[in-house]
Amino acid sequence: MTTKDLVEQIRKKKSFLCVGLDTDLEKIPTYLLSEEDPIFTFNKAIIDATHEFTVAYKPNTAFYEASGKKGWKSLSRTINYLNEEYPEIFTIADAKRGDIGNTSAMYAKGFLQELGFDAITVAPYMGKDSVEPFLEIRDKHTILLALTSNEGAFDFQTQKIDGVEMYKKVIEVSKTWKNSERLMYVVGATKAEYLEEIRKIIPESFLLVPGVGAQGGKLADVFKFGKTENIGLLVNSSRGIIYASESSNFAEIAGAKAEVLQREMAQLMDTM
Amino acid sequence: MTTKDLVEQIRKKKSFLCVGLDTDLEKIPTYLLSEEDPIFTFNKAIIDATHEFTVAYKPNTAFYEASGKKGWKSLSRTINYLNEEYPEIFTIADAKRGDIGNTSAMYAKGFLQELGFDAITVAPYMGKDSVEPFLEIRDKHTILLALTSNEGAFDFQTQKIDGVEMYKKVIEVSKTWKNSERLMYVVGATKAEYLEEIRKIIPESFLLVPGVGAQGGKLADVFKFGKTENIGLLVNSSRGIIYASESSNFAEIAGAKAEVLQREMAQLMDTM
Repeated sequence: MTTKDLVEQIRKKKSFLCVGLDTDLEKIPTYLLSEEDPIFTFNKAIIDATHEFTVAYKPNTAFYEASGKKGWKSLSRTINYLNEEYPEIFTIADAKRGDIGNTSAMYAKGFLQELGFDAITVAPYMGKDSVEPFLEIRDKHTILLALTSNEGAFDFQTQKIDGVEMYKKVIEVSKTWKNSERLMYVVGATKAEYLEEIRKIIPESFLLVPGVGAQGGKLADVFKFGKTENIGLLVNSSRGIIYASESSNFAEIAGAKAEVLQREMAQLMDTM
Repeated sequence: MTTKDLVEQIRKKKSFLCVGLDTDLEKIPTYLLSEEDPIFTFNKAIIDATHEFTVAYKPNTAFYEASGKKGWKSLSRTINYLNEEYPEIFTIADAKRGDIGNTSAMYAKGFLQELGFDAITVAPYMGKDSVEPFLEIRDKHTILLALTSNEGAFDFQTQKIDGVEMYKKVIEVSKTWKNSERLMYVVGATKAEYLEEIRKIIPESFLLVPGVGAQGGKLADVFKFGKTENIGLLVNSSRGIIYASESSNFAEIAGAKAEVLQREMAQLMDTM
């Protein structure tokens, strides 16, 4: 999917909501466990109930890999369902991969080509040649971890290199990489005050913002400091939507939670 | 597996060789492609031919994920085969994972418990709470990326934070984490001169050293600067062993290549 298509979808739906499909067998309604593929059944119900308020879905691969090859099948069925039923929706493999060049190329092939995700999250620690293989693929997007929303972000990401915080250095350096126009960035919403600084370095790039909801963070602040002319934001919510209820109408309630966020987003977009 | 068991195996075999199972359908002998599971068939042959010279195997997950759920099945069969046939051998999932706490816990469960690897490689960018969930599991090991063997290592890892290179900072900080005695570190052999510096910070920890072979690097230097009283090294070779031949006796030739390295290692150990 092109960035243009993503922006069009955002404007049409008046939403920049991404729903995180962190689907955990221990957290989904117990009556689903008798299904042949409980994880896919849950995801399908959540997707069907939330898609009109949502522009992106982001399965975190950890939750699928925890079930081995069965989990991989659920992931594969989920992305296939999204690509077939809702091809306008932007799909992100939250995989946080990154390895030496030929190995990163294998991950790029697996997630962006074989599985057919539009984007993948990638860790920057191994530098340029660990990220560029992902950037080679046309109409796909690499979402680089810059500033994450967890406490450990302060261990290294906010430490200064030559007077510049590591996460800013990562963003600056990544701009020099080949096909860097295919980069987006993960910026945790627990640090909305940093968004203004980040926008000085990348005034146009899309930011994937986790941490609005369960991890704490405020949508209005994120919008104020992070938006671009093309919105330039994907705000993720996982647990706050998908685990809003454990009852048999969990999907309906997830849909209602997504709609609340979408309405808030529409109001913010109307102020522009 | 305990570190003590690993050290005993190293002394018994006079080897600190790790064989990287970066098994690529495009590089294995073509006649294997007609097998039901070519990747597992290849791995099994390599393992059977090299195990007496080898103390560890390290499948890189990228090569399996590139084939989706089929690849996951091959990975699962490979680790099961190792655990059943050669339980004394140390097994490493080269996965380079790392995510927020509850998500890292899912990866830890998947790789160290469900699949049953002895160790997993983990990226440090997200800090303490992204690594500690891996460290919680008894008799398992977390191998933290410190200084990798690729060119991109110079982008961030060797940059200085408060006058200290990032990779040293990562090692220093990681020593303060809970259960840090279960940490090992990835240190690329292309920079053997750094090993002396690293040993000042972690005089005892095991180092996983890639880059002897295809990526360039010298075994004698690695041993000289990196060894501890308990050897404290796992030196990895992947392509130089597993792709040494494309003919039907590829496994035999891989065994011979592994034996050459093992003999060199035995000689070095004899000088201690």
